[in-house]
Amino acid sequence: MSGRLVVVGLGPGSPEQMTPQARNAVAAASDLFGYGPYVDRVELLPDQTRHASDNREEISRAGAALLMAAEGRHVAVVSGGDAGVFAMAAAVCEAIEHGPPEWRAIDLEVIPGVTAMLAVAARVGAPLGHDFCAISLSDNLKPWDLIEGRLRAVSAAGFVIALYNPISRARPWQLGRAFEILRGHLPPSTPVIFGRAAGRSDERIAIAPLGKADATIADMATCVIIGSAETRLVTREDLPPLVYSPRSAGRPSA
Amino acid sequence: MSGRLVVVGLGPGSPEQMTPQARNAVAAASDLFGYGPYVDRVELLPDQTRHASDNREEISRAGAALLMAAEGRHVAVVSGGDAGVFAMAAAVCEAIEHGPPEWRAIDLEVIPGVTAMLAVAARVGAPLGHDFCAISLSDNLKPWDLIEGRLRAVSAAGFVIALYNPISRARPWQLGRAFEILRGHLPPSTPVIFGRAAGRSDERIAIAPLGKADATIADMATCVIIGSAETRLVTREDLPPLVYSPRSAGRPSA
Repeated sequence: MSGRLVVVGLGPGSPEQMTPQARNAVAAASDLFGYGPYVDRVELLPDQTRHASDNREEISRAGAALLMAAEGRHVAVVSGGDAGVFAMAAAVCEAIEHGPPEWRAIDLEVIPGVTAMLAVAARVGAPLGHDFCAISLSDNLKPWDLIEGRLRAVSAAGFVIALYNPISRARPWQLGRAFEILRGHLPPSTPVIFGRAAGRSDERIAIAPLGKADATIADMATCVIIGSAETRLVTREDLPPLVYSPRSAGRPSA
Repeated sequence: MSGRLVVVGLGPGSPEQMTPQARNAVAAASDLFGYGPYVDRVELLPDQTRHASDNREEISRAGAALLMAAEGRHVAVVSGGDAGVFAMAAAVCEAIEHGPPEWRAIDLEVIPGVTAMLAVAARVGAPLGHDFCAISLSDNLKPWDLIEGRLRAVSAAGFVIALYNPISRARPWQLGRAFEILRGHLPPSTPVIFGRAAGRSDERIAIAPLGKADATIADMATCVIIGSAETRLVTREDLPPLVYSPRSAGRPSA
């Protein structure tokens, strides 16, 4: 007998930015797995069981959730933002590929959500309005020189860059080094956006030119967006500036 | 007297994937602007006025919306997916930058949404589980050689690629050419996902290996995701295959 596993993206944090589909998927589950602070966002029903775990235990969490689904339970694994962007859906698929054959028979559903870079971008205008990329700056799961190579490739090629997992206690220097590399390819005036807890009551948004961007502004919950050479900053008298990346590139704007 | 302008991402199409924030923002507006099919997704209230326009008229639509907001109206501009990803938020910011000074005083808000690549990715597993990029394949607003250079740069650097606007009647060959370029950098087995109308009743999802990917499967409403060399396809007996990009890269998986 095989149960169900649903991997749910809860959105950036505000209940107003969680889709009805995500809300319903969580409410229908018997067991909820996830990183503690994400599970805490969900109001548990009396018959639901909470299985919170630490941030780094993605694969063991995925395995525990799959094991329970294989027993016939209706399991939800929750992620902040989108379920598939540097989040639990990939860990669950990886566990299925390397796990026992019966896990491939589990009814798996992934529910998308508003990922952090979209929520942060919306707060300042439209910095992701042109070609862009998302890079996890964590070198826990890939070598640092691979990350440096990617930063060079995309900044030289004109992509706006969204950095996830920019900094942590165990990775204090990587974001500063990323800024150094990007300064080699982009004008010092390129807008950098630090977006923390976008849409939540403790939101903090800061904009700085790349030439002066200070990595220590960021923490683990910050998404950092670095413009391309074409990204514009529009000042406004009594309002915060707008940052946007024009829809056209490589030729004079129409 | 200055009104309000809200640019709203309606999500991929299913009402279940539209955030409450987007729904409320649309309901609060006096006037709705947007590409016809997007405006049609909204159930108009009796006192709301509809201003639908053609797909290509982004800048003139932004200007008309700003003009009305500057007159004190409460205007909503709607986009499919996210408001800031190849959508109206950038056009509105561009119009503000180049428009009359009073447009800078308008109370502008951007409401994010679930963008197409997230909805498509969720339907097959987690192909965006590792570093990825989003590229508009339309050469209406940028030269084609710039697009080719970007495809080469990101495929060589190991990014998963999501292509927006892959094909249209006026741009029939570009997606086929993109596949050709990518075949020069990626194994023929690399999974390609064609996702049309994800989450809607007329949804069509297809998976093909890059070596055999047929561009004619795509249409204007398709988002195409091309894996990296590390993206995996997991077959399942009675279920569709899963596609995911492992969280780790560039070294043996943990």
